[in-house]
Amino acid sequence: MPHYRAPVEDTLFLLSDVLGVHGRANLAGFADATPDVMEAVLREGGKLADAVLAPVNQAGDREGCTRHADGRVTTPAGFKTAYDAYVGGGWLGLSMPEAFGGQGLPQVLNTAIQEFASGANLALSMYPGLTQGAAAALLVHGSQAQKDLYLPPMVEGRWTGTMNLTEPHCGTDLGLLRTRAAPNGDGSYAITGTKIFISAGEHDLSENIVHLVLARIEGAPAGTKGISLFLVPKVLVNEDGSLGARNGVSCGSIEHKMGIHGNSTCVMNYDAATGWLVGEANRGLNAMFVMMNEARLAVGVQGLGQSEAAYQNAVAYAKDRLQGRSLTGAKAPDKPADPIIVHPDVRRTLMQIRAFNEAARALVLWTALQSDILHRTEDAQERRTADDLMGLMTPVVKGVLTDRGFANAVEAQQLYGGHGYVEEWGMSQFVRDARIAMIYEGANGIQAMDLIGRKLPKDGGRAMMTFLGEVQTFLKDNGEDEAMAPFVRPLKTAADDLQQATMWLMQNAMGKPEHAGAGASDYMHLLGLVALGTMWGRIAKAALARKAEGGDTSRWDAKLVTGRFFMERTLPETALRLARIRSGADATMALDAEAF
Amino acid sequence: MPHYRAPVEDTLFLLSDVLGVHGRANLAGFADATPDVMEAVLREGGKLADAVLAPVNQAGDREGCTRHADGRVTTPAGFKTAYDAYVGGGWLGLSMPEAFGGQGLPQVLNTAIQEFASGANLALSMYPGLTQGAAAALLVHGSQAQKDLYLPPMVEGRWTGTMNLTEPHCGTDLGLLRTRAAPNGDGSYAITGTKIFISAGEHDLSENIVHLVLARIEGAPAGTKGISLFLVPKVLVNEDGSLGARNGVSCGSIEHKMGIHGNSTCVMNYDAATGWLVGEANRGLNAMFVMMNEARLAVGVQGLGQSEAAYQNAVAYAKDRLQGRSLTGAKAPDKPADPIIVHPDVRRTLMQIRAFNEAARALVLWTALQSDILHRTEDAQERRTADDLMGLMTPVVKGVLTDRGFANAVEAQQLYGGHGYVEEWGMSQFVRDARIAMIYEGANGIQAMDLIGRKLPKDGGRAMMTFLGEVQTFLKDNGEDEAMAPFVRPLKTAADDLQQATMWLMQNAMGKPEHAGAGASDYMHLLGLVALGTMWGRIAKAALARKAEGGDTSRWDAKLVTGRFFMERTLPETALRLARIRSGADATMALDAEAF
Repeated sequence: MPHYRAPVEDTLFLLSDVLGVHGRANLAGFADATPDVMEAVLREGGKLADAVLAPVNQAGDREGCTRHADGRVTTPAGFKTAYDAYVGGGWLGLSMPEAFGGQGLPQVLNTAIQEFASGANLALSMYPGLTQGAAAALLVHGSQAQKDLYLPPMVEGRWTGTMNLTEPHCGTDLGLLRTRAAPNGDGSYAITGTKIFISAGEHDLSENIVHLVLARIEGAPAGTKGISLFLVPKVLVNEDGSLGARNGVSCGSIEHKMGIHGNSTCVMNYDAATGWLVGEANRGLNAMFVMMNEARLAVGVQGLGQSEAAYQNAVAYAKDRLQGRSLTGAKAPDKPADPIIVHPDVRRTLMQIRAFNEAARALVLWTALQSDILHRTEDAQERRTADDLMGLMTPVVKGVLTDRGFANAVEAQQLYGGHGYVEEWGMSQFVRDARIAMIYEGANGIQAMDLIGRKLPKDGGRAMMTFLGEVQTFLKDNGEDEAMAPFVRPLKTAADDLQQATMWLMQNAMGKPEHAGAGASDYMHLLGLVALGTMWGRIAKAALARKAEGGDTSRWDAKLVTGRFFMERTLPETALRLARIRSGADATMALDAEAF
Repeated sequence: MPHYRAPVEDTLFLLSDVLGVHGRANLAGFADATPDVMEAVLREGGKLADAVLAPVNQAGDREGCTRHADGRVTTPAGFKTAYDAYVGGGWLGLSMPEAFGGQGLPQVLNTAIQEFASGANLALSMYPGLTQGAAAALLVHGSQAQKDLYLPPMVEGRWTGTMNLTEPHCGTDLGLLRTRAAPNGDGSYAITGTKIFISAGEHDLSENIVHLVLARIEGAPAGTKGISLFLVPKVLVNEDGSLGARNGVSCGSIEHKMGIHGNSTCVMNYDAATGWLVGEANRGLNAMFVMMNEARLAVGVQGLGQSEAAYQNAVAYAKDRLQGRSLTGAKAPDKPADPIIVHPDVRRTLMQIRAFNEAARALVLWTALQSDILHRTEDAQERRTADDLMGLMTPVVKGVLTDRGFANAVEAQQLYGGHGYVEEWGMSQFVRDARIAMIYEGANGIQAMDLIGRKLPKDGGRAMMTFLGEVQTFLKDNGEDEAMAPFVRPLKTAADDLQQATMWLMQNAMGKPEHAGAGASDYMHLLGLVALGTMWGRIAKAALARKAEGGDTSRWDAKLVTGRFFMERTLPETALRLARIRSGADATMALDAEAF
């Protein structure tokens, strides 16, 4: 059976040494997150992931969810117990406001726990994960009464949340959506329509489910400017918070999916279900984007989580499986063959995943820290910079970490040979589960378009200039340090590639937007590579500092080697991305649609 | 439901215009394969794939194979009928010798049919595919009596074949295998042991199954030099070819796999089963390699087949799905949104797969033609060159076409958004099915080691020099042709990268073989890119010639645009591969195994 062990030590190192979160006492809530508290939280969260969530992961895949004739959905055996342990420990509300029962701790801590949970059991982690997203949207856009009524049980995990956007004919292009809302005259609306691909739409883990639903109020404008957001509880809620009658919403069927079988993906039928407007009428997309942005970062973290889980298992297999002899002479002469970890191509695979994971972990925590700064600082300039950087990096974290996380799961599976292809060993599940992260919350092509079409040009390119400025500062600050040269030199080349790609787009895509579209995916990956390379620069610096303290330096030596591998093997991909972007859209767009 | 349409027109163009097979009348059997015969064969084979094999593909995935308590295995509904149509049409023996009931047509035709069959229904195509491989091994290494007794019903498809190599503790490293063979005194052996991952090991499609089994004769040397190949029929065969008693071989269980559910992957138990030596004692690996090499090319073709099938469905979806508007203004103003094929990132995806498929098809046919030359020419020099090129390209076709074929299936699935993740649309199946091709017949890392450790240094690097010489000749011959410049220039750069990587390995890997191991996978892909780029050069030249004939040139214009896309977007990856190879093994191998 596959195993999982939460990367607690690495997370602690990143938080303290690389991101310096303990020096951020100016941020609200950070003063409470002392080094001791952070360590205790991460160790407990790690234990939960390892010992409670991971053990039901494979069984959850095998059993899947079951929809009964009456519309009820049963989650796999063991999920309810594990979910109860998760929410019982207060993990869902870790960084939610104390006013609603949360612990108010930094988002950066919550993000670390999200990695652990999604690495241990992606399907299960989605139930609380979607609840956090729905709660975030209510926090920002809900009325005080809505927050008071719905948030405490959601933070507690007694009620879960969903987001209902997609309809059969309408995915990315939400302007096409048809679900309609008719005023009931009492302030509520009757919501009617069909939503598909609703994760956690119906299940047996919670007493109630709070659906956030995009719909069009009768008479509203066509397109995206006529969409409103509604709160539609599965069970109607009395004023005192107790549960009333069943609402007119039900699960029509569940999807048969490639993976995340433990999560119920539902077709939801709204049949004049009672709903309440969240935020302003016709401003639903705006409200939903709060949830989407939160969810996008969480999905990027899922890519990392699956990559880490697959890596850990591949390492164990590579140390255990005996096959062939080392090119440099037998390493286990007493055994019939050497463990396959002696083979360079196996090492290459493991190093490639490891070098990604460690930088990706730094990047998601860095991005979460921007979120903390944005929401918790009093300094306007600091807030603006954090907002810029987070906006810029959200599509990158989502798109790049899930593309690479999936590719890494495939590589890890490959090490198992035929054993990777049979379900018994669990590697197929990592691949199948990781695959969804490239798709949901906006397919990665959409992330790339968001980056290049919205985030990049916004405010005259201020966010990208800020990011590149930070990279340049890092390069300048470390340019004279001989020990940092293996990191500084390749990062400078990569940052130059990014700068040139950005220039090329500025000069060419204004006149012909198809140049931007044809290069969008490559540009997203180019920025992702530079961001990950920058993280390796920061990690290396911190590792060198720890190494200088003396003692057993093996952990820091391993960090530095892993970083060098990234710089030598992964980062040079920036040149390929630049070449593709510069080739423009001509060959891409030349054919008539009929020629396909 | 997904569809499939065999690429008959493209195959005809490649055979006639690019490979010039009709000028090869010096090769035995080619004179019979007139243009008319070839076209008729391909059109009929295409029909079979489209109308018989493809329609049961998705249902086969859903139902899978069932093992009954008595060890019998049932294939999915519809498989038997489709299989009967396949073998009834004589497709299994298309290029088998007429002496054993085959049609003696060129292997290059058989390879085209393999693409059609594996694109239409990979799981089903494996039953005749493995039979072809087993028959090929018997043809070369079997005794006359064995050939006379076993080949005719195998060529007919009344009996199928398998290859039994893997054991639980022994995959790549066959020296570890334990299955033993005890002489019965009558020329036969009693075979005892357990084999795993045996594709088509037990099923209900044929009257008998001819297992080719690697085992160790009692007292044989340890390691690979003590392995012999045995023929072990499921049902014992009387001298007149009629069936006798059941042999002591049975299916202990079938694997639950990620994909190819329609193919029964069995644990086979040999319990003093009666077997006969094939070829010389202790030379079993040698005999098995005939089968393996045949199978490796066929598996490469499977990578292409799945890539093509996924592409065709993605094209249909991209033309049909309405979502968003073109960046250059509405293309379908009468509809609520434009089909997503208008979006550059969707186009990029389709062009990327298409540009690979068309070159990969040329490459597999070119490689199959080398096989035809090898087996059918009387010219010793021509034979040697064909042998060199085929040996060099076999691991590349297997490794590169399956890696990219899988990646393409994933990209095609991505275009469907959430619909790609649910099983209903069939895109998940293409991904899950394509995944196995990277693993079986030697995982792709093993192909890379075969290339760099065996094929490259063999005979002083003669094969690679021959290949590079052919590329240089092509570049020289076309260097002055302005219309060929978009192909010649990038190909020259790519060939230079390959030459430099080869030089670097010669200078560095002799002293430190780990440099070769750490760069093996990148080198395989680098060679694959140059080979595919060379194919595009040849295709472009042929397309320009056809275009010069006048008339409707749209088909040739599309070819040229697709080739340019490959040159601009895919081929520049050679520089990245070279950079990785040159970085050597230091960072890859620096960590102790315990540090993982």
